[in-house]
Amino acid sequence: MREQLPALVTLLAVLLMFGTAFAVGRARGRYGIAAPATAGHPAFERAFRVQMNTLESVALFLPTLWLAAHYGFGYWAGIAGLVWLAGRSWYALAYLREAARRGGGFALGMLGWAATLVMAATGVIRALLAG
Amino acid sequence: MREQLPALVTLLAVLLMFGTAFAVGRARGRYGIAAPATAGHPAFERAFRVQMNTLESVALFLPTLWLAAHYGFGYWAGIAGLVWLAGRSWYALAYLREAARRGGGFALGMLGWAATLVMAATGVIRALLAG
Amino acid sequence: MREQLPALVTLLAVLLMFGTAFAVGRARGRYGIAAPATAGHPAFERAFRVQMNTLESVALFLPTLWLAAHYGFGYWAGIAGLVWLAGRSWYALAYLREAARRGGGFALGMLGWAATLVMAATGVIRALLAG
Repeated sequence: MREQLPALVTLLAVLLMFGTAFAVGRARGRYGIAAPATAGHPAFERAFRVQMNTLESVALFLPTLWLAAHYGFGYWAGIAGLVWLAGRSWYALAYLREAARRGGGFALGMLGWAATLVMAATGVIRALLAG
Repeated sequence: MREQLPALVTLLAVLLMFGTAFAVGRARGRYGIAAPATAGHPAFERAFRVQMNTLESVALFLPTLWLAAHYGFGYWAGIAGLVWLAGRSWYALAYLREAARRGGGFALGMLGWAATLVMAATGVIRALLAG
Repeated sequence: MREQLPALVTLLAVLLMFGTAFAVGRARGRYGIAAPATAGHPAFERAFRVQMNTLESVALFLPTLWLAAHYGFGYWAGIAGLVWLAGRSWYALAYLREAARRGGGFALGMLGWAATLVMAATGVIRALLAG
């Protein structure tokens, strides 16, 4: 499970991004927001921010997940990744309904990410010290 | 060609992102949209959406491309990647002219991406089952 | 140092992204821009553009950094990555104060990125020719 779990988490992170992009496309149709506009209805704007914030979060997460996995923390980084996924899914579903509800999922996602960050930093620093 | 083709496709994906960023910079100058504004002229807004949508697409594509390559589908994932590149280049060039023309390239890009997704999922699930 | 330096640079790139996201969150509070809005005060809009442009830059940079490292340029790609980091940090700090000051850091970041691009392209083409 040293790399299978990070691989599974990566696949699910991609599907989460796809889901948030799909929600934007659906909101474009439902609220009549023709591209290239990215504003015009609060529900569309929430969907758009969910997509962008998910992308930003994935950009923080995948590098630390794989650095951690590379330096021997694959299993625990994968577990932290499942926490991150739970948090980011909760964030997306809650934010789509109401912006004020996004705090809990955001915090849980940050917790999972922070765990992969600590593992990645530990691995990188250890490798640098070992020369 | 197990990894050379995915590597080439990755390099070309980076150049595609660079090209779409370059088009935004040029549109800033041409239509007098000073940073940090991201609106003000339809052609600029199209260029900006092309850049962002290309970035979103790359974030979906590179992880599935490399998961597929890692699990033994390097050659076919690379071929799917060339399809994705063709679709995304078509999308960018068409959308820069007119938002309504973006459908064909978008669909072709999705097709290439979906192929890498299926290969990645096959590889990940097979590896999980093998323990 | 063939992969430790690229790994360190990747970790620092993630922290740079986190820093720019943190600046957006702080600007939301300071200028009273409630999510999902991404406009309303020039300083907030600069912070938001810094975050997005940093993300775009990371998406161009990490793939070329790791392609270069994979094809034997790990050390020099890591050095180029430190240049990129210096440029992008300068860019972020300067742009947060005033949009017109972002040129120097942007140029330095591009220089570091271009170096990783040349190494990545050299490695990919060499590997393709070797079959």
